[in-house]
Amino acid sequence: MKKLLKKRSRKAGLSPGSLVHIGEVRQADPHTEVITYDRERVDVSQPALEKECPLPPVEGAVTWLNVEGIGRLELLKRLGDCYGIHPLVLEDIANTDQRPKAEEYDKYLFVVLKMLIPLDSGVSSEQVSFVLGDGWLLTFQEGLDGDPFNPVRQRLKNPQGRIRSQGADFLAYSLMDVIVDNYFLVLEQVAESIEVMEEELMRAPSQRTLAEIYRLKRDLLFIHKAIWPLREVINSMIRRDSALVKESTLIYLRDLYDHTIQVIETVETLRDMLSGMLDIYLSSVSYRMNGIMKVLTIIATIFMPLTFIVGLYGMNFKHMPELEWAWGYPSVLLLMLIVTVGMLIFFRRKKWF
Amino acid sequence: MKKLLKKRSRKAGLSPGSLVHIGEVRQADPHTEVITYDRERVDVSQPALEKECPLPPVEGAVTWLNVEGIGRLELLKRLGDCYGIHPLVLEDIANTDQRPKAEEYDKYLFVVLKMLIPLDSGVSSEQVSFVLGDGWLLTFQEGLDGDPFNPVRQRLKNPQGRIRSQGADFLAYSLMDVIVDNYFLVLEQVAESIEVMEEELMRAPSQRTLAEIYRLKRDLLFIHKAIWPLREVINSMIRRDSALVKESTLIYLRDLYDHTIQVIETVETLRDMLSGMLDIYLSSVSYRMNGIMKVLTIIATIFMPLTFIVGLYGMNFKHMPELEWAWGYPSVLLLMLIVTVGMLIFFRRKKWF
Amino acid sequence: MKKLLKKRSRKAGLSPGSLVHIGEVRQADPHTEVITYDRERVDVSQPALEKECPLPPVEGAVTWLNVEGIGRLELLKRLGDCYGIHPLVLEDIANTDQRPKAEEYDKYLFVVLKMLIPLDSGVSSEQVSFVLGDGWLLTFQEGLDGDPFNPVRQRLKNPQGRIRSQGADFLAYSLMDVIVDNYFLVLEQVAESIEVMEEELMRAPSQRTLAEIYRLKRDLLFIHKAIWPLREVINSMIRRDSALVKESTLIYLRDLYDHTIQVIETVETLRDMLSGMLDIYLSSVSYRMNGIMKVLTIIATIFMPLTFIVGLYGMNFKHMPELEWAWGYPSVLLLMLIVTVGMLIFFRRKKWF
Amino acid sequence: MKKLLKKRSRKAGLSPGSLVHIGEVRQADPHTEVITYDRERVDVSQPALEKECPLPPVEGAVTWLNVEGIGRLELLKRLGDCYGIHPLVLEDIANTDQRPKAEEYDKYLFVVLKMLIPLDSGVSSEQVSFVLGDGWLLTFQEGLDGDPFNPVRQRLKNPQGRIRSQGADFLAYSLMDVIVDNYFLVLEQVAESIEVMEEELMRAPSQRTLAEIYRLKRDLLFIHKAIWPLREVINSMIRRDSALVKESTLIYLRDLYDHTIQVIETVETLRDMLSGMLDIYLSSVSYRMNGIMKVLTIIATIFMPLTFIVGLYGMNFKHMPELEWAWGYPSVLLLMLIVTVGMLIFFRRKKWF
Amino acid sequence: MKKLLKKRSRKAGLSPGSLVHIGEVRQADPHTEVITYDRERVDVSQPALEKECPLPPVEGAVTWLNVEGIGRLELLKRLGDCYGIHPLVLEDIANTDQRPKAEEYDKYLFVVLKMLIPLDSGVSSEQVSFVLGDGWLLTFQEGLDGDPFNPVRQRLKNPQGRIRSQGADFLAYSLMDVIVDNYFLVLEQVAESIEVMEEELMRAPSQRTLAEIYRLKRDLLFIHKAIWPLREVINSMIRRDSALVKESTLIYLRDLYDHTIQVIETVETLRDMLSGMLDIYLSSVSYRMNGIMKVLTIIATIFMPLTFIVGLYGMNFKHMPELEWAWGYPSVLLLMLIVTVGMLIFFRRKKWF
Repeated sequence: MKKLLKKRSRKAGLSPGSLVHIGEVRQADPHTEVITYDRERVDVSQPALEKECPLPPVEGAVTWLNVEGIGRLELLKRLGDCYGIHPLVLEDIANTDQRPKAEEYDKYLFVVLKMLIPLDSGVSSEQVSFVLGDGWLLTFQEGLDGDPFNPVRQRLKNPQGRIRSQGADFLAYSLMDVIVDNYFLVLEQVAESIEVMEEELMRAPSQRTLAEIYRLKRDLLFIHKAIWPLREVINSMIRRDSALVKESTLIYLRDLYDHTIQVIETVETLRDMLSGMLDIYLSSVSYRMNGIMKVLTIIATIFMPLTFIVGLYGMNFKHMPELEWAWGYPSVLLLMLIVTVGMLIFFRRKKWF
Repeated sequence: MKKLLKKRSRKAGLSPGSLVHIGEVRQADPHTEVITYDRERVDVSQPALEKECPLPPVEGAVTWLNVEGIGRLELLKRLGDCYGIHPLVLEDIANTDQRPKAEEYDKYLFVVLKMLIPLDSGVSSEQVSFVLGDGWLLTFQEGLDGDPFNPVRQRLKNPQGRIRSQGADFLAYSLMDVIVDNYFLVLEQVAESIEVMEEELMRAPSQRTLAEIYRLKRDLLFIHKAIWPLREVINSMIRRDSALVKESTLIYLRDLYDHTIQVIETVETLRDMLSGMLDIYLSSVSYRMNGIMKVLTIIATIFMPLTFIVGLYGMNFKHMPELEWAWGYPSVLLLMLIVTVGMLIFFRRKKWF
Repeated sequence: MKKLLKKRSRKAGLSPGSLVHIGEVRQADPHTEVITYDRERVDVSQPALEKECPLPPVEGAVTWLNVEGIGRLELLKRLGDCYGIHPLVLEDIANTDQRPKAEEYDKYLFVVLKMLIPLDSGVSSEQVSFVLGDGWLLTFQEGLDGDPFNPVRQRLKNPQGRIRSQGADFLAYSLMDVIVDNYFLVLEQVAESIEVMEEELMRAPSQRTLAEIYRLKRDLLFIHKAIWPLREVINSMIRRDSALVKESTLIYLRDLYDHTIQVIETVETLRDMLSGMLDIYLSSVSYRMNGIMKVLTIIATIFMPLTFIVGLYGMNFKHMPELEWAWGYPSVLLLMLIVTVGMLIFFRRKKWF
Repeated sequence: MKKLLKKRSRKAGLSPGSLVHIGEVRQADPHTEVITYDRERVDVSQPALEKECPLPPVEGAVTWLNVEGIGRLELLKRLGDCYGIHPLVLEDIANTDQRPKAEEYDKYLFVVLKMLIPLDSGVSSEQVSFVLGDGWLLTFQEGLDGDPFNPVRQRLKNPQGRIRSQGADFLAYSLMDVIVDNYFLVLEQVAESIEVMEEELMRAPSQRTLAEIYRLKRDLLFIHKAIWPLREVINSMIRRDSALVKESTLIYLRDLYDHTIQVIETVETLRDMLSGMLDIYLSSVSYRMNGIMKVLTIIATIFMPLTFIVGLYGMNFKHMPELEWAWGYPSVLLLMLIVTVGMLIFFRRKKWF
Repeated sequence: MKKLLKKRSRKAGLSPGSLVHIGEVRQADPHTEVITYDRERVDVSQPALEKECPLPPVEGAVTWLNVEGIGRLELLKRLGDCYGIHPLVLEDIANTDQRPKAEEYDKYLFVVLKMLIPLDSGVSSEQVSFVLGDGWLLTFQEGLDGDPFNPVRQRLKNPQGRIRSQGADFLAYSLMDVIVDNYFLVLEQVAESIEVMEEELMRAPSQRTLAEIYRLKRDLLFIHKAIWPLREVINSMIRRDSALVKESTLIYLRDLYDHTIQVIETVETLRDMLSGMLDIYLSSVSYRMNGIMKVLTIIATIFMPLTFIVGLYGMNFKHMPELEWAWGYPSVLLLMLIVTVGMLIFFRRKKWF
């Protein structure tokens, strides 16, 4: 099960702007890739960032530098120097326990998002940071569970694609769009689990159903926490009228904003459903208890008087006239039959069966 | 049971503005109809859209093009070219998992709504898109469970009707009004189900009641999700002072806004009632349990001592003086009578029956 | 029990502004009354509206036309023509399933309220519509459960009363004030029921308590729905700076606004209390269950071992040495006494009694 | 137990501005006191208000007129005439079922607060009205459970006190400050009760705990209702830039505002705690039930088979070979021992004891 | 267990601005320390504040006066005189039951925060007050559970550190940053406890789990109360454009603001989780009860009929033909076997085991 909080303890007391990596590291070495494109051509390279800064973008071209794996802090520092990035921004990139946000600086726009990837065992969450400059875009992924940017790479190869004729802001939008599309995939997975449980809930609720409801509630709580700030992030990008985001891209960002709202509402709807299911579970378990207790009570109420009667005539008193009667035994059997039938009628009247 | 989420997976990673149909298809071929009217005449035709664009509206007349069934994407593309509609709008029309919204473009206003149709088995939800231009209106329905626009078609045939002397904006309003009227029908159906359950709840709550409460909660959650954004949609149409919506239509839109608020409040009221019913259900089941346990406890408390007593004198000890007594048997009967009466008095005091 | 929703189905698909009466009709014929007054005199008449329009108000005088019973739609139409009222307003007057609202038109202000009247069997809700013009006021009641405007009629007869020297806006205010005063009466009735139940809840909660809590919750939900929009209605009357509402009346409207806020807060407080009572009910029932189960468990735990022991010596084995012993019977009696006392000490330790 | 609502029925239908006393009367005769002070002197008098108006304040001095007991309406009317107070204000002073509010009139500021006084049996609530003019202050208390203004009277006697050199606005502030200080005392009392209950809850929850939780929830609901509007009241006094409140007093009002926010947050925290305690109570009672049922089930499961076995060999069939066996009896005893041990192992495995 | 409220009773009725210490005192004597630094040097001294005022800051240098332990009121008064601090501010410093807030005065900015320190036995909360002037900073700690400012003292000793070249506002920010970092430590501790309990909840919920959930809920309620106002505090520092906070520090404050939002959201997430766990606890306990009752019911239902049958043939009637039959005993054994198997099949069908 995922940890509730990432360990930030190492940062406590450090000077602000200190580069400390917070989060899990799966790849020892970060993987970096530079794609430069304009209408005519696309260049893909893996430069040795330690020695040289990635080429400054040619007039009209767009340079996209993608870093997968952010554990190597010197690399971050180096890129910060190359592109003139504020230490606090670098600190936020290295700290994967960041809240999604958008901040505008003089020469670039800084955006942090959470990427959710559906896995078999639940949901994987990764932090993605964007630094959008004039003609260039840096993206930083944690590099844990796969790279969802491939569809955009494919589209970049198509010379007719709209993306090739647009700037770095459109590239950033396209990558964010892919991330938001992945949210829908995650929610579809959750919704399917909920539908499976709905049937179980009505047919045969079990301890397992309960554990599953709890697990999904927990997952949705964390999805909610990851997605909720996004609305504010994208809205602030639209409203802040930055020179880095072109007018023509705004309409796409507005579309993205709509999708984000829809994702958020879907999360809330699913959370409402789970709460409802928990109430139904409790009510259903209580109702079933009633059924069990009715069986027990009917059985006890019928057989306790009968057992008493047979016990009565099992006593060893010397003077018990009934025992001598020829019709004693059949009379007692009859009496017991009457008692039983009377009880059954009583329970029938109470609608117990 | 309806799916919680529509499959959007096919869209993940595609370029924005890609036309992909998301949703169910029941009609292989879309049904299109063009109605052109002004004060004097009404023309109804079913043009072959593949070959020609629907006629541009004559000065002063209104052209309404209604498309039922949106699975044929070429048709959408063709209409997009004819009327100059942005690819993102076409994408939204094709994707039936859209959140209700209103967007203004240069030459047209784009509105997406959810239409709810009461069925025997629950509620059917369909997406309806409006593209309102100067003198023309395009409407797109999914074409699943019937066409609710017939009353408007009837009114169009009446030469004295107010609708004939107004523009395309009034036509759009009239169609939205029909959709909102349908919301009331759906809520009436839900309210009736709730009233039936209210009686059951007090008389004899059962597992069926629980399942029904759950079903209605789920339905209302989805109705809520479909209707809630509408308030913002219509409000934005009123406030945004578009040249496409005439002053004289605004008063009708305000009326529609009031209806929408009322629908939303009714949904919330019904949801509150269902939550209340669930609490009552649980309390009632717990209370009934008490009744059952009282019966069991009374029976056990009376017969256990009696059974012990008769068992006592059923022992086979050689030396049990009581067994020899002439009054042994009647004394024991008397003792048991006293025990029973004592127990009954005890329970009476505790107000158990 | 009241219907959850009024049937609006008849309206679905009709042209906006169509006059359709929605609601219950108790009086076949509407009762209309015209009161004209100024500082000097008061005239009361019952004009035949079918033939003539009520007299236009004399300069400085106020004409109040009150209609009780709105089922006769021709009458509404006729009044609409006389006073130049918009068809949408007439439609809203005829439809008693209206949400409280205030709308300003060129020559009049239209206000819809809900009037609550405490009845023995619960709460009766009626719609009251106000059309306030310059020197005239039309009021429309449903005429179901009595007319609460009598105190105002009385005050109109008093030549010294403030109301006589004020305009139609003050008359409208006075009538609304009476309506809001009635809300307090309704809430007092609910509060008394709650106090009765509070005692029951602690003394002896029953299924009846539960049904009563549910009934009151339902009532308060509907009172809430009727009263909640009022705050906005009165606030908008104060803020909108209409020529129809004089400066000197505003201070009274502000007072009315305060009362409305207080009514709304009281409704919320009572709803909170009922929710709290339901939780207490459930907890209390569970607690009582514990008591019942303790009795059962104590009885069973004491008598089951005893019954086993006496059964043991009721066996018919040939070779059971204990049965022959002279002290066998007393020893067994002693053993059983020890078992019983041991059990009692055990339960005492567990604080079960 | 306190009434949920004060009877306002007497007011229904009366003309606005009618003086009607709503509330309890404990003192037949109101007690009035006038304190006039400036830097040099303090005069305390008890004027006969029926005959003369309290002296108009001397230039630079402050006149404070405190009325305890508001049942005598002529007195109110008389003061209203003396100081030129609007009838609606007098009506609000007489009606002790007022919502806290601040209203500015031409020549005075009208403020209504609720004073909470901790009593042994719970919380007493009294309404206090302030009419703050230029150099004079009227205060009206209900006079039910003591006068909390004494500390201010003491401070007025101290010639060096800050209060002596300030105006009537600072006096009003000081009195309100005392009232808000009393809120803290009330909340301390509630918090102590909660702490006592917390221990009970974990050790031995009883029906009494439940009743106490309910009582405190009810109390806090009413404290909430009394205190909540205060924030708005004081905020509006700060913001409205009245000539009656001096700049130098504003900083004190801001301090008072902070205290009010803190009181409100504390009330919410305590309410949250009580809700939590109720949930814990229910869970704890359910858990204890499990314990009780385990005892019962273990006893029944062990003794029912044993009782059956001994009953089996108590049958009187002629041909029951086992009864004749020499080792019959010991074998049965052994069998029963095995059954018992088996059962105990089974329950041990299930972790039932 | 911590007290719910600090005793403020001593303050009730006192003049505003009266210095009264509210809170716990652990250190008899306050510990004061003055650090003066600029780019070149750092001076640490422990001046005798009773006799002299701490040196006024040299041009360009920063003087930080830290007071640990605020029980000695004369010291506070003395510092107030030295630095010209308003009596209301001194009162707020002495009263440790303050709500976090930021207030701007002419010559200084006053900020109150709550510092949370994770202890083994839970969370310790201390109040820290900041008075930020031009070139000087006073900080007041309660001095209960350790001083978290040491990391900043370390950083001050580093001549290259950014903090040495910045003003008093950056120092204040750095100290607040340390406090907010400590919040993360506290929340990590809570999150770990929750994770431990999650496992318990699914494996074996006990009364202890319940007590622990309650304890954590209570802790989080108080953490929430301490942290919630912080967002407003820091936001107001950023927005109020004070001359005391330099432009270059604002970007750091914005970073701090982001951390605060994240802390607040984490607290809410953890509270949501605990609420969810309580629901799961209740559901799980109810479900386990069903299991217990099933065991009891199965046992009773099988053995009660059997016990009746053997009792039947234990009766002592003279005329009971079955007793004489040679096959009587085996037939009864067979009958009982059939009854038992029938019962087992019945329960199997009901899926009870």
